[in-house]
Amino acid sequence: MRAAARTCFAPATVSNLGPGFDLLGLAIEGIGDTVTARLTADPGVTVERIFGDNGRLSLLPAENTAAIAATSTLRLAHRTEGIALTIHKGMPLGSGLGSSAASAAAAALAVNLLLGSPLKRSELVAAVLDAEEAVSGRHADNAAPALLGGLVLVRSLDPIDILRLPIPPDLFVAVVTPDCEVSTRAARELLPKQIPLRARTENAANIASFVAACYTRDLGLLAASIVDPVVTTPRLGLIPGGAAALDAAQAAGALASSISGSGPSLFALCHTRATAQRAAAAMVAAFAAHNLAAKPVISPADGRGAREVQDPLA
Amino acid sequence: MRAAARTCFAPATVSNLGPGFDLLGLAIEGIGDTVTARLTADPGVTVERIFGDNGRLSLLPAENTAAIAATSTLRLAHRTEGIALTIHKGMPLGSGLGSSAASAAAAALAVNLLLGSPLKRSELVAAVLDAEEAVSGRHADNAAPALLGGLVLVRSLDPIDILRLPIPPDLFVAVVTPDCEVSTRAARELLPKQIPLRARTENAANIASFVAACYTRDLGLLAASIVDPVVTTPRLGLIPGGAAALDAAQAAGALASSISGSGPSLFALCHTRATAQRAAAAMVAAFAAHNLAAKPVISPADGRGAREVQDPLA
Repeated sequence: MRAAARTCFAPATVSNLGPGFDLLGLAIEGIGDTVTARLTADPGVTVERIFGDNGRLSLLPAENTAAIAATSTLRLAHRTEGIALTIHKGMPLGSGLGSSAASAAAAALAVNLLLGSPLKRSELVAAVLDAEEAVSGRHADNAAPALLGGLVLVRSLDPIDILRLPIPPDLFVAVVTPDCEVSTRAARELLPKQIPLRARTENAANIASFVAACYTRDLGLLAASIVDPVVTTPRLGLIPGGAAALDAAQAAGALASSISGSGPSLFALCHTRATAQRAAAAMVAAFAAHNLAAKPVISPADGRGAREVQDPLA
Repeated sequence: MRAAARTCFAPATVSNLGPGFDLLGLAIEGIGDTVTARLTADPGVTVERIFGDNGRLSLLPAENTAAIAATSTLRLAHRTEGIALTIHKGMPLGSGLGSSAASAAAAALAVNLLLGSPLKRSELVAAVLDAEEAVSGRHADNAAPALLGGLVLVRSLDPIDILRLPIPPDLFVAVVTPDCEVSTRAARELLPKQIPLRARTENAANIASFVAACYTRDLGLLAASIVDPVVTTPRLGLIPGGAAALDAAQAAGALASSISGSGPSLFALCHTRATAQRAAAAMVAAFAAHNLAAKPVISPADGRGAREVQDPLA
């Protein structure tokens, strides 16, 4: 007999990773969202309850990313079951860690399990992408790593084409989230609409080097490639103490540091867990000097993707 | 006793390779320039004679790329010898095959040998780059493969940082040069100065995929990545029959085809020598239909770089 409810967890994700605006993202361990999907008698998707959002997320299915992803999953599977969702937010909203994608990925996977897994995991990216489009623009650099885990390159959205990139061993990521909020939409509107062709060439050189560094395990090259002034410079202005925190991470031995997604979270890539801990502490201290509390997370760079877990309410 | 003259050959190169404008290039076999450098009593660099250019290249050292590269090589090596150059052009001018870089690379290597090789081969890229800057703009995507051979990614020009990329086995390149000329400078001025940020993202996805495909030997991915409408669409307008020739190469079984450098030469990547021959013949026929004669060259994709050869006049 098939279970009448399934619960899945999907991780927070660090996107952009320097040169990969809208293209690169990786899954981290230790932080993410959990969604339970339950079969109901009436068709349609409903949101029963949301924990951990301080009442800020909408319960309306058309405005909730978990519900949008659940609806898209039903549609992609050509199914009409009724689904009720319970969402446990495990990370702050608007933090640059792919909060909307995590809820959507957990919901999509839970619904797919509930239906008997008619869709492959890679096919669920489209459902999460629908949810992202509704709240912050059509980009899969959080959606894909949240579902698939690891480090991904979003080769194309139409058709959806995702590449897994190898991750150099012993690579850790320190993520620090200051207690302020940046709207993804606002952070996107801040970006220049037009850029000089030369800036394209510089970005292409960096993302090409980033990919080569992943395959050759060249940490020095990887670090040197994590640069994108076009996207990060304007966004850094939205994060009080952000520039100082990035400098502090480098001084603490990080290979490279930049903004996670649209911020305000920052990340630092480090080649041991101990260095990642030092970099995280240095970033927290830098934010404290700007009177901002900040929460650190340390994770291996090859975090797992969405997966089934026990219902937290069971 | 050190020889008083050294002769070097440097190959033609296919640059850009789709998404790698100013960044990617590869050396081909079977076509290139040969330069003899001879020690002279008086200091300074002179050009004694040029064969194969129909009198079109300047003998003035400040206007001749071989002489500029020779002068830079002396300066980089902190040497003041007098050098006389004899240049044998083995490829058409303004053909998009790195003609200026080939002469410069052959001259730089010959001078370095004449001096007892004070500079490493990678250090000679700077000398060739000086020559390129004088005639067509500062770009190393011909200079680096002409000197080093193989497929290169120009990571940065300042400082010069060149990466060798692995080439999938059994990859061949068909190059076809129609009998018309495109000035590199004119082809560069045709490019948009500003582009939409979205076009940057698409280019970054393609060059990132190109690099991943090189490491994973994924020919399908490699082919799909050889796309760059921003650079190739306006330039294709300068090549009569160019669009038809690219289509013909694809129809003949090429993995991918595009413009070599600033054109008018076109290239097609193919996964066997036989396919490359068919693609070349199809491109030649397409140009013939536009009343343009065209010359084909078939080469393995991992052509050798500049090297010492026998003096053609000896």
